[in-house]
Amino acid sequence: MTGIGETLYQWVSEVYPHRRSLSSPGTIQTLEFLKGKLPNLKTHEFPSGQKVFDWTIPPEWHVESAFLEDGSGVRILDYENHALHLVGYSIPVDQSLSLDELQTHLHSLPEQPSAIPYVTSYYQPRWGFCLTHDQRLKLVPGKYRALIESRFIPGVLRVGELFVEGETEDEILFSTYICHPMMANNESSGIVVTTALAQWVSQLERRRFSYRFLFAPETIGSIAYLSQNLPQLQKNLKAGFVVTCVGDDRDYSYLSSRAEDSLADRAARHVLQYHHPSYKTYSFLERGSDERQYCSPGVDLPVCSIMRTKYGQYPEYHSSLDNLSVVSPSGLEGSFEAYKKCIMALEANTHYRRRGPCEPHLSSRGLYPSLSKKGSASNTRTLMNLLAYFDGKRDLIEVCDKIGADLIESLPIIESLLEHELIEVVE
Amino acid sequence: MTGIGETLYQWVSEVYPHRRSLSSPGTIQTLEFLKGKLPNLKTHEFPSGQKVFDWTIPPEWHVESAFLEDGSGVRILDYENHALHLVGYSIPVDQSLSLDELQTHLHSLPEQPSAIPYVTSYYQPRWGFCLTHDQRLKLVPGKYRALIESRFIPGVLRVGELFVEGETEDEILFSTYICHPMMANNESSGIVVTTALAQWVSQLERRRFSYRFLFAPETIGSIAYLSQNLPQLQKNLKAGFVVTCVGDDRDYSYLSSRAEDSLADRAARHVLQYHHPSYKTYSFLERGSDERQYCSPGVDLPVCSIMRTKYGQYPEYHSSLDNLSVVSPSGLEGSFEAYKKCIMALEANTHYRRRGPCEPHLSSRGLYPSLSKKGSASNTRTLMNLLAYFDGKRDLIEVCDKIGADLIESLPIIESLLEHELIEVVE
Amino acid sequence: MTGIGETLYQWVSEVYPHRRSLSSPGTIQTLEFLKGKLPNLKTHEFPSGQKVFDWTIPPEWHVESAFLEDGSGVRILDYENHALHLVGYSIPVDQSLSLDELQTHLHSLPEQPSAIPYVTSYYQPRWGFCLTHDQRLKLVPGKYRALIESRFIPGVLRVGELFVEGETEDEILFSTYICHPMMANNESSGIVVTTALAQWVSQLERRRFSYRFLFAPETIGSIAYLSQNLPQLQKNLKAGFVVTCVGDDRDYSYLSSRAEDSLADRAARHVLQYHHPSYKTYSFLERGSDERQYCSPGVDLPVCSIMRTKYGQYPEYHSSLDNLSVVSPSGLEGSFEAYKKCIMALEANTHYRRRGPCEPHLSSRGLYPSLSKKGSASNTRTLMNLLAYFDGKRDLIEVCDKIGADLIESLPIIESLLEHELIEVVE
Repeated sequence: MTGIGETLYQWVSEVYPHRRSLSSPGTIQTLEFLKGKLPNLKTHEFPSGQKVFDWTIPPEWHVESAFLEDGSGVRILDYENHALHLVGYSIPVDQSLSLDELQTHLHSLPEQPSAIPYVTSYYQPRWGFCLTHDQRLKLVPGKYRALIESRFIPGVLRVGELFVEGETEDEILFSTYICHPMMANNESSGIVVTTALAQWVSQLERRRFSYRFLFAPETIGSIAYLSQNLPQLQKNLKAGFVVTCVGDDRDYSYLSSRAEDSLADRAARHVLQYHHPSYKTYSFLERGSDERQYCSPGVDLPVCSIMRTKYGQYPEYHSSLDNLSVVSPSGLEGSFEAYKKCIMALEANTHYRRRGPCEPHLSSRGLYPSLSKKGSASNTRTLMNLLAYFDGKRDLIEVCDKIGADLIESLPIIESLLEHELIEVVE
Repeated sequence: MTGIGETLYQWVSEVYPHRRSLSSPGTIQTLEFLKGKLPNLKTHEFPSGQKVFDWTIPPEWHVESAFLEDGSGVRILDYENHALHLVGYSIPVDQSLSLDELQTHLHSLPEQPSAIPYVTSYYQPRWGFCLTHDQRLKLVPGKYRALIESRFIPGVLRVGELFVEGETEDEILFSTYICHPMMANNESSGIVVTTALAQWVSQLERRRFSYRFLFAPETIGSIAYLSQNLPQLQKNLKAGFVVTCVGDDRDYSYLSSRAEDSLADRAARHVLQYHHPSYKTYSFLERGSDERQYCSPGVDLPVCSIMRTKYGQYPEYHSSLDNLSVVSPSGLEGSFEAYKKCIMALEANTHYRRRGPCEPHLSSRGLYPSLSKKGSASNTRTLMNLLAYFDGKRDLIEVCDKIGADLIESLPIIESLLEHELIEVVE
Repeated sequence: MTGIGETLYQWVSEVYPHRRSLSSPGTIQTLEFLKGKLPNLKTHEFPSGQKVFDWTIPPEWHVESAFLEDGSGVRILDYENHALHLVGYSIPVDQSLSLDELQTHLHSLPEQPSAIPYVTSYYQPRWGFCLTHDQRLKLVPGKYRALIESRFIPGVLRVGELFVEGETEDEILFSTYICHPMMANNESSGIVVTTALAQWVSQLERRRFSYRFLFAPETIGSIAYLSQNLPQLQKNLKAGFVVTCVGDDRDYSYLSSRAEDSLADRAARHVLQYHHPSYKTYSFLERGSDERQYCSPGVDLPVCSIMRTKYGQYPEYHSSLDNLSVVSPSGLEGSFEAYKKCIMALEANTHYRRRGPCEPHLSSRGLYPSLSKKGSASNTRTLMNLLAYFDGKRDLIEVCDKIGADLIESLPIIESLLEHELIEVVE
């Protein structure tokens, strides 16, 4: 049996090639992949033209073919070869033009000459091609033909959602996006790690929280979803995470919610501090994904982000270089495990109170050495500290932060204290 | 047309020579200068002997002449030559004395041998002369004649006040002092910068705040004023500044109010941080001017101070070296502009709230590039951050501090967001 | 007349040799010593077998004799020579054993080969001997005889208490322990410093607070006492201190209460900051004495600790090396004086408010120089700052912390301000 890292990498390789956009056949293929892994996934559909808050759902974008030919009819660029060659939501065109005219429709990255950039123009009619700067420099004067057979069809914007019920209505959100074509770390990694978390949560024997997993086109997808579900989320959501850029094996990163100290933030920071202490912290001023909507004034949901290398911080970002070689089984597994620990921390996070006023007599319960010797007590330090700080006021994450103990490692100790009836949960 | 700096320097040179004291002809000349610039200036008069809180208004002090002669009748010191030669509020004397006897009435600064020190004895009958230490060392044994023709006249202590009405009763105070004879940075600079601010405020088309400008002898003047106006100030005053030592071109300095985090403090710190980031911070423990009264327990007004080099921190302070060469057009202009920016910040400082729950669609309003490319959004960062932090809870200064944006530079952006009806003021 | 340091050292030499345990003749001897110094000391008795919270009072432990003989009948270890040779609460034994069998009952410190360790087994029946590691290495194979004539007698656990009434029911606690045999810094120093503080407090002319001095076996003694007095302490106790390891002349140390910012903590930190600024701070996570009970969740008393070198931080700790050479007159006196200053700070700690709104006229009261000269006011700075910060909101310790003044040195200034009716106490 392969490990979770290998499975996640295999899934990335399946999800990566789909030509996703805000709404396109590639998006549908992605949702079909998800339904294969998460049979209870539901799809919400928002019709083109519908107003969602200040935004309007765009039409679907279908591309039959798109290429660029030189004067001798040789195809020098073809959408078939790489989805990034075509500016997202390009309008149809069939036009002959000089190199100078053509240049105004080309996009490349001089500082990354071997990368095809990722460019979109969702809300302004445009057409354009993207290519490596190396290739662009080789273009010679002459006539070119640009052909884009694209159609804008009144259709729907799709948002996938899996809800996993728990013992309470309090819920935890994981949100990832499904609109970037052929990029591996951004965004395929987020899709597969979220999928694996959904599977893992679904098979838990007990869940104090309910869990909501969202797969939505970035920005407009979360806006559309919020336009229909905001009051309920504001009532129930206790912590949420935007899952993105979770596939490489370089950094661990944490991006704060706007509130900075929500339960989600505290859980993420605690897990990272004890398991990946060299993680990088980004303030909400460096935000860039759907936390922009979730943490918006008036929305104010407790949503932060754990990433590996943050978007914008790795050179392959938003280009054809963000391919399968950027992500790795260990990179994906590290993210999955970090989020799993967040869930474990959140599930365990309650207010404990020590029973009885003074210290209990531990040695008679086998919880403390009966022979008192110089320097002998260090191995029971966490147990003693938990007992000294369980006052029913701080929650478990706060207590573990305070006493400098890893919450995950403390769970068996807490279990033992509960069995010995030395502590109790404060409702 | 000369710039504001040159104008201010010209004014200093007019104000500097007056032989001010707590109450003296020089003070009257200064108030006449002020009425020339600020025709609506009113003068409050507090009669000698009047009790103001724990203090008593002293008599007026008039000096006909004062000099020191050596045995051969040569005048070696003359009040005519420099006002600082005479200890402030010296009693009359006409006495022949030996050098040893004379020494007990002389004041000089061994560590600054070319400076005449500034010495006063307002509340204890005394007489004395001040001279450079160089000169003092040259005095030879022998007889000297000390003559001081001074009179103490029951009169009034004068406080100049200009009130400029605004749209609301909330008000901003600028306070400076008019009791130091022949010193340029301390205190002439404060008088002229305050005057220029009063002129500038008076011609503003709109003023949310009312403005009060006070010109009062230090300590007793502000105490006298507060003894009659405290309840009203406590009701209306939202921010205040003591304007002193604002003429040299070395440091920018900020001295905190006792409350430390009043609106005045926050405005001052914000302006200095973005326009003079190397400014020096002084705690209220290093106070020395009328903030001592304004921030007194039981008075508790929100008053701090922006200075250039703080009193006591520059070598020429409280001596004849604090002359016209210490101040400069650029030094004065820098202070004027800093305070102007404080006023602009205070006028603009309100609570804004973003309209609508999620991010608005900016590109359709021309507020965001319609083509999404790697790294393209940096120039709209302040706009995006203002929208993300306008939650109606933080005021504008807090928001700008939080997002790291210069409030003054942000004003046109805010104007544009208001025009597009993307934000609103929370009353 | 000898100084307090010499007296304290003499007392340590009297208290040190008693063979204290939780309950033993040595404990009774110690309480008799205390009654000699504090005639009003009362003894609380808790009968063996009594339940005190989660704990049970153990029997008394009486040792007639205890020694180890080699095969030729030579006594190689004898309890008569050092109390630490015998594991505390050893059960009786008279047994012949091989060296290998004997080893399982021996305790030594390889890293401190000349020290006899301190070992106890209060709550699990055991026997054992402690010896230097040097001696242990010299033991040769052969037969040994272990003889321990000890008895467990139903008796009482004794807690000594002195209550010194003050003007109010608010009280200050000093707690030290009486259960360690033949160790000088831990614990004899605590006993004698607490005794001296009790004597000093008793002879004060005025006491705003009542004072409670406890001499109790560590842990079980404080638990037993709390089991009968908790509600009253929770009602009245305003600050408390665990007095331990106060005899050596190396560090000054402060161990925080669990609450971290109680009145006791603030007093201790203020005194140490101004009188022993290089003191070491230990968090409550490094606790080890009766603050474990006093600060327990549900008990929550404001109790911290000032020590010289903290237990566990000096090499002689919990061994025969913690003898009379570790403590010194100056070490003991330093602790006594620090705690005395805490009491002075607590007694003086109230809320003062300046009378009248602005600054009072100080020079007419002789509180400020009447001649105003450059740089002349520094010696009245504390007086001015006290007047500027006495707003009736901060207590005296907070004000002194804020203005950077030593509270103890400020007391005569405050006295003078009260005499001049410039300040008043806010009830």
